[in-house]
Amino acid sequence: MKTYAISLLFLLFLISGRAQGDKTEPITIKNQGTFAIGGSIKKSEGTFDPIAHGVFNPTNQSTQGQTLHGDHATVLYQIPTEPRNLPLVFWHGYGQSMRTWQTTPDGREGFQSIFLRKGFPVYLLDQPRRGLSGQSLEPKMLEARTEDQLWFGIFRMGKGTNFYSNIQFSKDPEALNQFFRRSTPDTGPLDINLNIDAVSNLFNKIGDAVLVTHSHSGGQGWGTVLKTDHIKGIVAYEPGSNFIFPEGKAPEEISYVGGILKAREVPMEDFQKLTKIPIVIYYGDYIPEKKVENPGQEQWRAALLMARKWTKAVNEAGGDVTLVVLPEIGIKGNTHFPMSDLNNQEIAQLMYNWLEEKGLN
Amino acid sequence: MKTYAISLLFLLFLISGRAQGDKTEPITIKNQGTFAIGGSIKKSEGTFDPIAHGVFNPTNQSTQGQTLHGDHATVLYQIPTEPRNLPLVFWHGYGQSMRTWQTTPDGREGFQSIFLRKGFPVYLLDQPRRGLSGQSLEPKMLEARTEDQLWFGIFRMGKGTNFYSNIQFSKDPEALNQFFRRSTPDTGPLDINLNIDAVSNLFNKIGDAVLVTHSHSGGQGWGTVLKTDHIKGIVAYEPGSNFIFPEGKAPEEISYVGGILKAREVPMEDFQKLTKIPIVIYYGDYIPEKKVENPGQEQWRAALLMARKWTKAVNEAGGDVTLVVLPEIGIKGNTHFPMSDLNNQEIAQLMYNWLEEKGLN
Repeated sequence: MKTYAISLLFLLFLISGRAQGDKTEPITIKNQGTFAIGGSIKKSEGTFDPIAHGVFNPTNQSTQGQTLHGDHATVLYQIPTEPRNLPLVFWHGYGQSMRTWQTTPDGREGFQSIFLRKGFPVYLLDQPRRGLSGQSLEPKMLEARTEDQLWFGIFRMGKGTNFYSNIQFSKDPEALNQFFRRSTPDTGPLDINLNIDAVSNLFNKIGDAVLVTHSHSGGQGWGTVLKTDHIKGIVAYEPGSNFIFPEGKAPEEISYVGGILKAREVPMEDFQKLTKIPIVIYYGDYIPEKKVENPGQEQWRAALLMARKWTKAVNEAGGDVTLVVLPEIGIKGNTHFPMSDLNNQEIAQLMYNWLEEKGLN
Repeated sequence: MKTYAISLLFLLFLISGRAQGDKTEPITIKNQGTFAIGGSIKKSEGTFDPIAHGVFNPTNQSTQGQTLHGDHATVLYQIPTEPRNLPLVFWHGYGQSMRTWQTTPDGREGFQSIFLRKGFPVYLLDQPRRGLSGQSLEPKMLEARTEDQLWFGIFRMGKGTNFYSNIQFSKDPEALNQFFRRSTPDTGPLDINLNIDAVSNLFNKIGDAVLVTHSHSGGQGWGTVLKTDHIKGIVAYEPGSNFIFPEGKAPEEISYVGGILKAREVPMEDFQKLTKIPIVIYYGDYIPEKKVENPGQEQWRAALLMARKWTKAVNEAGGDVTLVVLPEIGIKGNTHFPMSDLNNQEIAQLMYNWLEEKGLN
């Protein structure tokens, strides 16, 4: 059997003639798994009696003296054989989960498998009160509101039900169906500090790694740098809010159709932590420079404007932030989800090149 | 580079001298991914205007004319190189998710990796309105009730906060912490028919496979056999309810401390589908034969009693059901989660032997 296996592997290498990392080759994993990290425990008054209170009652359960474990993050990891030194930790955005980094809506490989093939240990997380981390310690009413088209706009897929022209998204209706079904609601009140605590715990557990954020986790990512020393670099896709400036140095708020974007202020000592690591920020297409009437684009005009101010502020304080607006370097048609758009291999290569340039590979 | 890779692999095989499937060896995956399956779309009256309704408002969102995609299952799959013919589809129980089959609470490999190493394509699912399939089309109030100790009892870990003696569960407090944090609530009303639809769609998509159920998915599994021809065998861990009998032939309901267990009746033609495939059922330890006062044990006394009647009924109709009560074959200390207990490698081997015996490997 052993000889057979060796011969087969030999054959595979000889006849395929493909470079390692080619996506038609197998992925070889040293180990993989899942675990919960962070969170806390709440306890009800009284004493639990396993006889008197041990019957499940969906509508009128006795809870006295019992605990509830919740508000943790859930982590899925895969470690390739011969792993690179620094793992990548992938953190989803608003209304999303670890699925952001998995199979794309049109069925191709996402960043999880792409970077695993490049030899990186990958960690995907569901932040507290989202997806597999559904157990919240605070109650929440889930309303099941119809809002697909709202998010179609905010995620810059297009306007109403029409895609933007030249978009990097499959026109196969099943791709859009899969895209919508990746959304999953908050199962408790959204609490940024709770999320930051769980993710900083994750870094403290696994050690030095690079954080990859998307959208709402962008600002949370800056906040996490203040809580752990193990973030050695950040790749931020389309950060939307919670840009952090030193006390007294935040820029004016930016008003846009649909809201106001404010910066967050922290003590200078904290802000300086953001100047100690390399950071790259990517934005996709369809972000106007000047005010437009479409709210789906407006909040990204504000975010990009704030990101430019933030990049300048961090770099002037000695930091190393690179801001890349994809259409400005000739990469067009990207939505709010460049990591799963049709050109995601090109987007991944850009990220890989940046990691290499900064010595983070 | 290629020569180097070959030499290294060679070396690995030569010096390790280990049989394939040894858990210290790498897992080799042909491909892996995630997708949504099943579900439906609800639509609100009116017309969506991307300008007027395109601003996100957490408390007062306009929903008119918009859709919501929800009620799908989410599937994670991994296909090993040189896969066996029949994949395994793993379906979690009540309050749980695909994490049931992943890393154990004490950090060892779960059935996902164990059976992947044995060469099976594995499919793990989160049923509609659970975990990564959080988007429900019906609203739900999540109450964040303290009920850890209730489930500690029902999951037959022990009574109150005390473990049963000789239990196959780590006494490291972190194991229990991880165990509790695998629970995740329903994000919409529990609807068995919805779940069965999604899972039968999954089988229709991937073709012939073996279904592995746990607890609440046991009864749903029987129901899924009525909806798809692609289930070639079932392994059911601790099925709790919804045992299916022919019309007019259901046994009397079984009363236990905490409730009443009723059988479900279907037309004879449907029932007969359950006689066409091999089925094995496993129950763990601490299930009394006679009535006790502890509700945490009582519902399993009723379930096992019903399972015995069901096994007899299906086999008398020409079926092939094997009922295994683990302590009766000398395997003691198992909780309601044999697939993640300390002896889960032994439990997996039992299942593998059964698959082999039935030609399902």
